[in-house]
Amino acid sequence: MTSRVKFFVRSARVAHLATTDRNGQPHVIPICFVFDGKALYSPIDEKPKKSSPLKLKRIKNIRANPRVAVVIDHYDENWKRLAYALITGRATILFRGQQHKKAVLLLRQKYPQYRRMAIHDRPMIRITPARVTSWGKL
Amino acid sequence: MTSRVKFFVRSARVAHLATTDRNGQPHVIPICFVFDGKALYSPIDEKPKKSSPLKLKRIKNIRANPRVAVVIDHYDENWKRLAYALITGRATILFRGQQHKKAVLLLRQKYPQYRRMAIHDRPMIRITPARVTSWGKL
Repeated sequence: MTSRVKFFVRSARVAHLATTDRNGQPHVIPICFVFDGKALYSPIDEKPKKSSPLKLKRIKNIRANPRVAVVIDHYDENWKRLAYALITGRATILFRGQQHKKAVLLLRQKYPQYRRMAIHDRPMIRITPARVTSWGKL
Repeated sequence: MTSRVKFFVRSARVAHLATTDRNGQPHVIPICFVFDGKALYSPIDEKPKKSSPLKLKRIKNIRANPRVAVVIDHYDENWKRLAYALITGRATILFRGQQHKKAVLLLRQKYPQYRRMAIHDRPMIRITPARVTSWGKL
């Protein structure tokens, strides 16, 4: 990843995460995330609707198929300024440990909103980029 | 789809389209699109890098696996105002015909940028929603 792409990824407030279920049905949602230069981390911040956050679609998909894609992009009505960085790679779910702890810290630095949310008690998605392609004016 | 969801989808300038290849690898990119109340249409507007727009990853994926997901969302630093509508459905590629023509017109109404681009000569993705879920303050 070039330093320009890294800067573009780091400074984005929102990304879009695509996962796929066992049957080849894709799923995509906006995520908040932090990028430590090696991996992206995205917390589960929803109040679980059901008994467990593991029932969330993105988590179920990742456990069935760890291949994911994340896009970080900028939209502008001046289409000369459109840009995106597309990351494909593998996702894993962290439940605790040093990486989980570090991700919680970084997320709370980036997003004050997380400082009063129980993300330290929830699973965390870690995405390890395998390939990055970029397009437009990053 | 409720009228509130329809309004939210219609008024968005950009959406994110997820597709999946034969091997279960998801792909996601930002798209411009128009929604006519029944289907979403997104043109191929890139100058083809290779010999044919059919070699674009999203087109190859759709031809191998028509299942897609599209998310339309609003990000705001006030997280009480976050919202998204997630559409899953099937995509097909239109090359010409009445629907293609109508989509070009609607796209050029919504996006003046398309008025001088050759989208009438390029394939068009049509997405027929099968399921819509929404979250947050639409």
